[in-house]
Amino acid sequence: MTRFALTIEYDGRPFMGWQRQDHGPSVQQAVEEAVTRITGETALVYASGRTDAGVHARAMPAHVELAREITPFRLMEALNAHLRPQPVAVIGARVVPDDWHARFSCLGRHYEYRIVNRRAPLTWDKGLAWQFARPLDADAMAAGAARLVGRHDFTTFRSAHCQADSPVRTLDRLDVDRIGDIVTIRASARSFLHHQVRSMVGCLSLVGEGRWSPEDMTDALEARDRAALGLNAPPDGLFFLSADYPGD
Amino acid sequence: MTRFALTIEYDGRPFMGWQRQDHGPSVQQAVEEAVTRITGETALVYASGRTDAGVHARAMPAHVELAREITPFRLMEALNAHLRPQPVAVIGARVVPDDWHARFSCLGRHYEYRIVNRRAPLTWDKGLAWQFARPLDADAMAAGAARLVGRHDFTTFRSAHCQADSPVRTLDRLDVDRIGDIVTIRASARSFLHHQVRSMVGCLSLVGEGRWSPEDMTDALEARDRAALGLNAPPDGLFFLSADYPGD
Repeated sequence: MTRFALTIEYDGRPFMGWQRQDHGPSVQQAVEEAVTRITGETALVYASGRTDAGVHARAMPAHVELAREITPFRLMEALNAHLRPQPVAVIGARVVPDDWHARFSCLGRHYEYRIVNRRAPLTWDKGLAWQFARPLDADAMAAGAARLVGRHDFTTFRSAHCQADSPVRTLDRLDVDRIGDIVTIRASARSFLHHQVRSMVGCLSLVGEGRWSPEDMTDALEARDRAALGLNAPPDGLFFLSADYPGD
Repeated sequence: MTRFALTIEYDGRPFMGWQRQDHGPSVQQAVEEAVTRITGETALVYASGRTDAGVHARAMPAHVELAREITPFRLMEALNAHLRPQPVAVIGARVVPDDWHARFSCLGRHYEYRIVNRRAPLTWDKGLAWQFARPLDADAMAAGAARLVGRHDFTTFRSAHCQADSPVRTLDRLDVDRIGDIVTIRASARSFLHHQVRSMVGCLSLVGEGRWSPEDMTDALEARDRAALGLNAPPDGLFFLSADYPGD
């Protein structure tokens, strides 16, 4: 058996998320079905992160183990041929050691959230950003975001369906930048809770429009209570950017 | 009558281009129909540039003259309400003097062309970039591009359907930059011929893959013959960025 690491880009709009679901198409199913058509093998494909319905990925690491002898380049080409016309593309492939695991070997995950802060509706990036009509103060959002960086109990920012054992996470980075009417939030951590990025962004939007102060982010965090959550941002603006592994 | 300048963003994918056509939907028709529904007036909407089918706009200046008294803000809001769900958005509106003309007052036009240089197909930016599989040398492309800057007869880079009186244009800027697998070409001129940007980009792609030398761009230009054109790039990657006016 050979273990292949894959780097996958996808448009989350038509999918129920990464993970296989009974009630609709998933990216995992699309990739696994392509693997089966190429090799005749039924193989599980593991990803670094399990994105929600409508969330996108620029460079999602994944891995799959195959008996069939094939070069990484041929595997990548064949997967892309079989994935068409679904908006999923394998943009990298390489052979990795048998103990390399897309999820469990991962040392860091990076997300980006895009807000288009204007009254006009979106055109070509509809479904690829959150259109937010009321003016956002990105400096206030950055001040609020800084209050979440570090090791904390993120229960407030965690979905009721989160399956993680612990609500404690170390948030390494939560930056807010504005260029024109685009507000971009970048989040990095070894791992995130379910809905954590969207929940943090939702509350930061309240800070940005002045309904919350930056200090209210600390109060929400310290409440350790989902009921203290101000808002969960929609999936549209969220992109899984990349992930880090030992030896990268 | 009050003349309004509008700034319009659109996704060119579902349209036959800016200009009204008998055989399919156009951005001009979409905006003019919205104007009629709001004011009851039949008014022509003029744009700075007449983009082709599948070409996009980030900030296309346009103007319209109306008898109905309405503030620019209310006009913009009403247009956006009536344009939904078409991917056309009015992102700015203001009152301008009666001699301000989106096309004839325009002093400079800026385009951007995006190439995704990779073997994998596109996902979320399908239709919003040109996927080019063979490796492109952006430095060679930049050297080829520099040979087109200045005042020249651009007959080679002009569509057979171009209606301009003269094939002579002054190209102020033609830059090529690469970041990762994204090659971006930016072009600025007072005005362009029909298909000029796509024709220049198509030939630059030949330079980028080494089939043409940078000097071949000069030969193509000096041929002053459409038959010397190497390739017309697809509309997908082309965005009308913005335009300049007196007093801006």
